[in-house]
Amino acid sequence: MATQNSKLETQNSLYAQAGVDLQAGNRATKLIAAAVQSTFGPDVLSDVGSFGGLFSARRLGEMADPVLVASTDGVGTKTKVAAALNRWDTIGHDIVNHCLNDILVQGAIPLFFLDYVASARLDPAQIATIVTGVAEACRAVDCALLGGETAEMPGVYEPGAVDLVGTIVGVVDRAHIIDGGRIQAGDLILGLPSSGLHTNGYSLARKVLAGQDWLPPHPTLGQPIGEALLVPHRAYLNEVRQLWLAGIDVRGLAHITGGGLIDNPPRIFPAGLGAIIRQGSWPILPIFDLIQQLGQISDQEMAHVFNLGLGMLVIVPPDQATTALAVLSYEAFIVGEILPGPSQVTIRP
Amino acid sequence: MATQNSKLETQNSLYAQAGVDLQAGNRATKLIAAAVQSTFGPDVLSDVGSFGGLFSARRLGEMADPVLVASTDGVGTKTKVAAALNRWDTIGHDIVNHCLNDILVQGAIPLFFLDYVASARLDPAQIATIVTGVAEACRAVDCALLGGETAEMPGVYEPGAVDLVGTIVGVVDRAHIIDGGRIQAGDLILGLPSSGLHTNGYSLARKVLAGQDWLPPHPTLGQPIGEALLVPHRAYLNEVRQLWLAGIDVRGLAHITGGGLIDNPPRIFPAGLGAIIRQGSWPILPIFDLIQQLGQISDQEMAHVFNLGLGMLVIVPPDQATTALAVLSYEAFIVGEILPGPSQVTIRP
Repeated sequence: MATQNSKLETQNSLYAQAGVDLQAGNRATKLIAAAVQSTFGPDVLSDVGSFGGLFSARRLGEMADPVLVASTDGVGTKTKVAAALNRWDTIGHDIVNHCLNDILVQGAIPLFFLDYVASARLDPAQIATIVTGVAEACRAVDCALLGGETAEMPGVYEPGAVDLVGTIVGVVDRAHIIDGGRIQAGDLILGLPSSGLHTNGYSLARKVLAGQDWLPPHPTLGQPIGEALLVPHRAYLNEVRQLWLAGIDVRGLAHITGGGLIDNPPRIFPAGLGAIIRQGSWPILPIFDLIQQLGQISDQEMAHVFNLGLGMLVIVPPDQATTALAVLSYEAFIVGEILPGPSQVTIRP
Repeated sequence: MATQNSKLETQNSLYAQAGVDLQAGNRATKLIAAAVQSTFGPDVLSDVGSFGGLFSARRLGEMADPVLVASTDGVGTKTKVAAALNRWDTIGHDIVNHCLNDILVQGAIPLFFLDYVASARLDPAQIATIVTGVAEACRAVDCALLGGETAEMPGVYEPGAVDLVGTIVGVVDRAHIIDGGRIQAGDLILGLPSSGLHTNGYSLARKVLAGQDWLPPHPTLGQPIGEALLVPHRAYLNEVRQLWLAGIDVRGLAHITGGGLIDNPPRIFPAGLGAIIRQGSWPILPIFDLIQQLGQISDQEMAHVFNLGLGMLVIVPPDQATTALAVLSYEAFIVGEILPGPSQVTIRP
């Protein structure tokens, strides 16, 4: 079943006794239908509640050689932070923006998104809040929330824990696929600022910060730890569009996710090319300093787990770097350079 | 990140102490790469390990008005049965076939699939077994396993518990979308046999059967209870293709999932039409009799939770029913009829 159907659509007392609240599932389905529908553009041919979501592919015909780009991912244990603060309005933005960035790095713009929310016991208000966030994030990037599922799985999920999984499908004209193949030695690496941890490194961050009080404003953060941890993953679609519109030759895009600044960039380096990233060339967000300090974590390990304030790296020809920074709607940084050598990132002080 | 990447791709002792075994994630990634690649047809343009999976949409241009059909779902607590038996080779088939059937009912054939496997601690061998099953099921229906994710989430999942989520994208030419709109009073309902519970009703089934020994052969089942519960969800693509090829006018398809025989068929009934399904017109699988008997569950409740042996209902004109049954490669049944009345299913003795 698709489009925000609960698996649990029947009324059955025994079934409820088995740990499955069917009415809760139905309430959740109703609460989110409006939010989902608000993301439907003219290409969506199905209603909320159909078996599968229908999306017209006619628009793809306008491309010379359309290629669908798909990615599925979860928000990881960031849901534990949401649970600790009992704030569920932001993680929907995390999953949409994370998936969006994952296909953006190949040059794709989003078409539609599907979500999956599961927990030990369905809390209709909680699910409605989560999916409303998903819908808001989809609307913000003209992406249809085409389908989804809520599942109540007692005995699989820890009490109070939630998993949120998303799948995005976008499209790129084959000639415009970005794969890093045109990256050359001497190209410069622009860093687009992240809003925080985005969706990676939470197991470590939560362990290091477990002893702290997350609720009061923290002196070095200027906000509570919990708030700083929950800041949503940033979407970079508009920024990359600005670069494209300005005629910038975007030769490579690296979304800084699990593996941090060390493991992600090499995934798009042509053979024989590596990169240096210069520490101090961008402001490291205070939350990372706090984590490093409290956890006694080396610079190398920090760069291997976290984005450290850079959510997306953009690789451009050296003579276009200044123009690129100028056309972006907020401050970005020249953080490094492509050099001949092994396919790796070296962080230089 | 896409295509069977673990979120956890770095080597970091602190991160490991935080409950995340990164090497396990990497081993799992390697173990499944071959299985995933075996599902790649000529339309797949990406390698295992790219950010997003690339699928050429050129083939869609052959259709007059191509419509993408997408659905996301999980296997529910059937994973608890797999865990109880420590058998992980079948649930991959469950999730693929469940999703496949969900878009098949709208007339869509599959293009690609993405999976998500999560647990409290990554067991590389277990994940490799699960994803190999996903890949086998994808291959069987010419569907590319375009992407996926494995996530280790301590504190979110119960120890030993696994969730398996899938997203399928298929395509149908707009003129051939099946939405039940052409269903008429007098049309007959064919029932295609299910292989067991498929992926619904496990919370109830597990509760009712909790006191039993699942391992030895059960007298009334002819197989152990655990085995009967684990039989994979059946895919109906080939059966429906056989009907199409024989020129059968398939006016409606209902995948019997959560909500059983009661809630699913009405989702495709035109206004003013309902259906009767005749008990005894098909063989109810022994596992359902056992669950009903041990749980003292009424017929109505059973039909509201389980498929009772009918995994897919096919609605055809009365004069084509016999031909339809004849062209199917295994025994199917005329189980009911469309009648004027409220949009509901009535089970008649």
